[in-house]
Amino acid sequence: MYRTHTCGELRIDNLNQNVTLAGWVQKVRNLGAMTFIDLRDRYGITQLVVEEHSDTTVRETAAKLGREYVIQASGKVIQRSSKNSKIPTGEIEVAVDTLRILNASQIPPFTIEDNSDGGDELRMKYRFLDLRRNPLKKALILRHQMAHEVRNFLDSKGFLEIETPYLIKSTPEGARDFVVPSRMNAGEFYALPQSPQTFKQLLMVAGYDRYFQIVRCFRDEDLRADRQPEFTQIDCEMSFVDREDILTTFEGLAKHLFRSILGKTFEGDFPRITWHEAMAKYGSDKPDIRFGMTFNDITKLAQGKGFGVFDSAEYIGAICAEGCAGYTRKQLDALTEFVKKPQIGAKGMVYVRCEADGSYKSSVDKFYSQEDLAQWAAACGAKAGDLLLILSGVRKNTLSALCELRLEMGNRLGLRPHDQFAPLWVIDFPLLEWDDETQRFYAMHHPFTSPNSDDSELFDTDPGKIRANAYDFVVNGVEVGGGSIRIFDAELQEKMFKVLGFSKEEAEKQFGFLINAFKYGAPPHGGIAFGFDRWCALFGGADSIRDYIAFPKNNSGRDVMIESPSPISEAQLEELSLEIKTKE
Amino acid sequence: MYRTHTCGELRIDNLNQNVTLAGWVQKVRNLGAMTFIDLRDRYGITQLVVEEHSDTTVRETAAKLGREYVIQASGKVIQRSSKNSKIPTGEIEVAVDTLRILNASQIPPFTIEDNSDGGDELRMKYRFLDLRRNPLKKALILRHQMAHEVRNFLDSKGFLEIETPYLIKSTPEGARDFVVPSRMNAGEFYALPQSPQTFKQLLMVAGYDRYFQIVRCFRDEDLRADRQPEFTQIDCEMSFVDREDILTTFEGLAKHLFRSILGKTFEGDFPRITWHEAMAKYGSDKPDIRFGMTFNDITKLAQGKGFGVFDSAEYIGAICAEGCAGYTRKQLDALTEFVKKPQIGAKGMVYVRCEADGSYKSSVDKFYSQEDLAQWAAACGAKAGDLLLILSGVRKNTLSALCELRLEMGNRLGLRPHDQFAPLWVIDFPLLEWDDETQRFYAMHHPFTSPNSDDSELFDTDPGKIRANAYDFVVNGVEVGGGSIRIFDAELQEKMFKVLGFSKEEAEKQFGFLINAFKYGAPPHGGIAFGFDRWCALFGGADSIRDYIAFPKNNSGRDVMIESPSPISEAQLEELSLEIKTKE
Repeated sequence: MYRTHTCGELRIDNLNQNVTLAGWVQKVRNLGAMTFIDLRDRYGITQLVVEEHSDTTVRETAAKLGREYVIQASGKVIQRSSKNSKIPTGEIEVAVDTLRILNASQIPPFTIEDNSDGGDELRMKYRFLDLRRNPLKKALILRHQMAHEVRNFLDSKGFLEIETPYLIKSTPEGARDFVVPSRMNAGEFYALPQSPQTFKQLLMVAGYDRYFQIVRCFRDEDLRADRQPEFTQIDCEMSFVDREDILTTFEGLAKHLFRSILGKTFEGDFPRITWHEAMAKYGSDKPDIRFGMTFNDITKLAQGKGFGVFDSAEYIGAICAEGCAGYTRKQLDALTEFVKKPQIGAKGMVYVRCEADGSYKSSVDKFYSQEDLAQWAAACGAKAGDLLLILSGVRKNTLSALCELRLEMGNRLGLRPHDQFAPLWVIDFPLLEWDDETQRFYAMHHPFTSPNSDDSELFDTDPGKIRANAYDFVVNGVEVGGGSIRIFDAELQEKMFKVLGFSKEEAEKQFGFLINAFKYGAPPHGGIAFGFDRWCALFGGADSIRDYIAFPKNNSGRDVMIESPSPISEAQLEELSLEIKTKE
Repeated sequence: MYRTHTCGELRIDNLNQNVTLAGWVQKVRNLGAMTFIDLRDRYGITQLVVEEHSDTTVRETAAKLGREYVIQASGKVIQRSSKNSKIPTGEIEVAVDTLRILNASQIPPFTIEDNSDGGDELRMKYRFLDLRRNPLKKALILRHQMAHEVRNFLDSKGFLEIETPYLIKSTPEGARDFVVPSRMNAGEFYALPQSPQTFKQLLMVAGYDRYFQIVRCFRDEDLRADRQPEFTQIDCEMSFVDREDILTTFEGLAKHLFRSILGKTFEGDFPRITWHEAMAKYGSDKPDIRFGMTFNDITKLAQGKGFGVFDSAEYIGAICAEGCAGYTRKQLDALTEFVKKPQIGAKGMVYVRCEADGSYKSSVDKFYSQEDLAQWAAACGAKAGDLLLILSGVRKNTLSALCELRLEMGNRLGLRPHDQFAPLWVIDFPLLEWDDETQRFYAMHHPFTSPNSDDSELFDTDPGKIRANAYDFVVNGVEVGGGSIRIFDAELQEKMFKVLGFSKEEAEKQFGFLINAFKYGAPPHGGIAFGFDRWCALFGGADSIRDYIAFPKNNSGRDVMIESPSPISEAQLEELSLEIKTKE
């Protein structure tokens, strides 16, 4: 062993002990008579001191050190003259009597500090240096702890972690697969799993009634910011359960993580709201309920007074920003600009200031009397000093724009602190989504999602109205997990395929092995999958998942550190019976 | 919830309780007045009884049941008249008052019993049914427990589990990669990792001084029995350590698993033997030391007496089979046939019976006197009643054939029981292997394996003699794990590449990002990787890993259940800029 202690370990209790440390040189301060070296490892920083009277070779070695050199130092623990209360080792230092350079270092291309001077691309290229920085180290340690606690909890509840294969079969439904050419079966391909969905259902058929897996999944999608081609899921499935059992079990998991990782406890059950309510009150199926400011439908109140924009709108919605009546023209203009951004897409914004004297001042005073505005304010529960912000237009788009405006106001008013968590379940999703382009229904989750048993007669009359026995776990506006009770009855499954426009042959071709398995005694079952990268980032208080993945890819799906993907040799292509097609 | 208890849970203490169970029908015995149903789930089997006086609908439903139907049954726990002491629930049964078929089942294509009547291929095709059988269920539960204990132990020792990417870069050195075409980077490919080797070394450079991961690895090799294209490793790496630290740490892991999973403890340290000793005494770098019967080199003793076969041999080795002097001619012939099998390749076998009266009877009595044979017997520590078995020829081949003969004798003598475990470390492997065909050295482990520091001057004089700072963990003749201390010094790494015949450019091209990373402060480090599938099979007492993997592939790399690999659509090929090359 190269060390007796780590760099985060020594305290005043260790005074006068002879110790050996090893680590990286964070900083060298040469004060002439004394040289101070900050030595860093995964556990912390300890100050080394080389004094005027130290051994010559020690002083000579110290003079050679540069940033990020790897060294080993032995000496006695002494009390610091000027203590550093910011770090746990701040009361002591090590008076070095032996110093050895284990490895030199070139000057790193950016500083290894909490706030580095390196740009994103540079830090990605030197990820092994970026990973030395505290924020990334904390992120990966948090991730390890979360995975460990997930496993401890689920193990204690009788769940078995069962590994499912990575080389599986491509299915056209859903997102695009990554495929893997098979050398031994020329012209054929494996696919990498988008999720272990079918395998976990097969495990239920096989009788493993409580399964989970922390597992990598793959999607060959055009990458948006913060979406990775490979990502990690906590994948779970249970048999002989209904929705209540699933929600109770995994609310238990969530509470366990909140408590064990963040020290946060929650009184009572997490709130549950239906998808319809979530859309009406927050314009989103993943509402951030850390704050109120819910939507108020004032369509009826605001129409018929001659204001054409409102009169022609399908929906008029208002939110009440408490205490914001004092917003300046400039602030209101900025909000109008915000909602008019193409990705939000509102045409404009109407405001009503609820003045201190009980009067109202709005951007549509021409069309509406004080009484009209008072009615709106009452509908929104607004009081003197509050500000109403109103959007209108096609219902779906307006809800979505108002959702963005609400979140923006939440940010501006500091109502969305990273260390406050508001979990909830969103339930009763629609089972099907109509697609105008292809003129067919698509499964909102997947074709094995069970409908709400009360809605089964709607298959023949109004399939769009069928509620799914599906649920999402949402925290702070982030969809952390989602799942459903599955169809386990062959007849119902056939109905489902029919409404999705699958012929018997198509269904057989794509899901044949699962349909076949279901003929041999499938139990009632259901499950859930959590986005593990996302959950880690949420707990770490970050908006991006990138720093919670040790070696992420950039937005073109490239790993710029190892320079991958890359061409392969002609011999490899030959073995795989493949040719690259050059674009004309 | 569909049940109040599992089928493995009810005992005499539960008498008179009203319970609800759910599971699969294992067996129905209709005795006219009474119908007995064995109900099975993951946890066990409970007997249900439907009596003559039971509710009509219950009796009608019971009459419809077939094997593997999924049912839900409620009723009172009563005492059995004829108890079954073989199962934990054998003292009670449930008198059914409500019975519901949750799902019917077709007749399974083979029996769901410990010893099924289904052939291998059929059971692979219906893996979801095969997985219902007890031996497979036990295997997967064991695997879950082992993974959980590995994680508990390593977490308690400060190791972080860090996930490394699956979409990495193809490198020509080593086994063949599976590759993944990149759609967004036409003509370029990712590779699936054969191991996270380079990433774990980068994590050491990044300062994460104790890393592990239970991780899937991929090798596109021609499959032999019991080799899978995807397999799981326990991958570990540590910084600021030497060999002793690694061996101590992971001997701790092994002992923890032996104790927590099998209830077995080991006194003192595991034996360590050098590679040279392992080869000389067992003819194998993964010796089974559950029994002795080590090799004795009698080359000098046996040459020069006119027996041409021995006189021309490079090596003559003998093993002593205790108490086997009574082996018949037929038994000895069978052993001779065994060693002459092509995969073993000996030309013949010489035996010496050490008779009870102190005389010797051998197959080479023509050439050797009683005194000669007495010398051989003494060299082998043989006593009256023992049998010497002797092979000769080229040293390397003879050692390997004698190894097989020893293991065969061990099997015949019952010296290799599945529930007895003999772990050891094999150390001091050669660093390099000479390949006659390509006239160059290859790294026996990989090009980053550190040489033994005592041997570094041999680089210039006799590289083949350099010992590696590498070690294997071996149990019962199975290589469970292996690893090495890595080179972290740029100069030594250059020497290594040179002796392997890599030009600077080639080394740079293949390992550039790692060599580059090492310039920024690489700590001394080393690690080990364990074959997790293999370790599970070993602990389960099985020779094959296949039943320790939920969904394995067959020997052609196919998953016959989901029928993968399979062709993909023209559109997919088009998107990937690929064409299938038809063989001429």
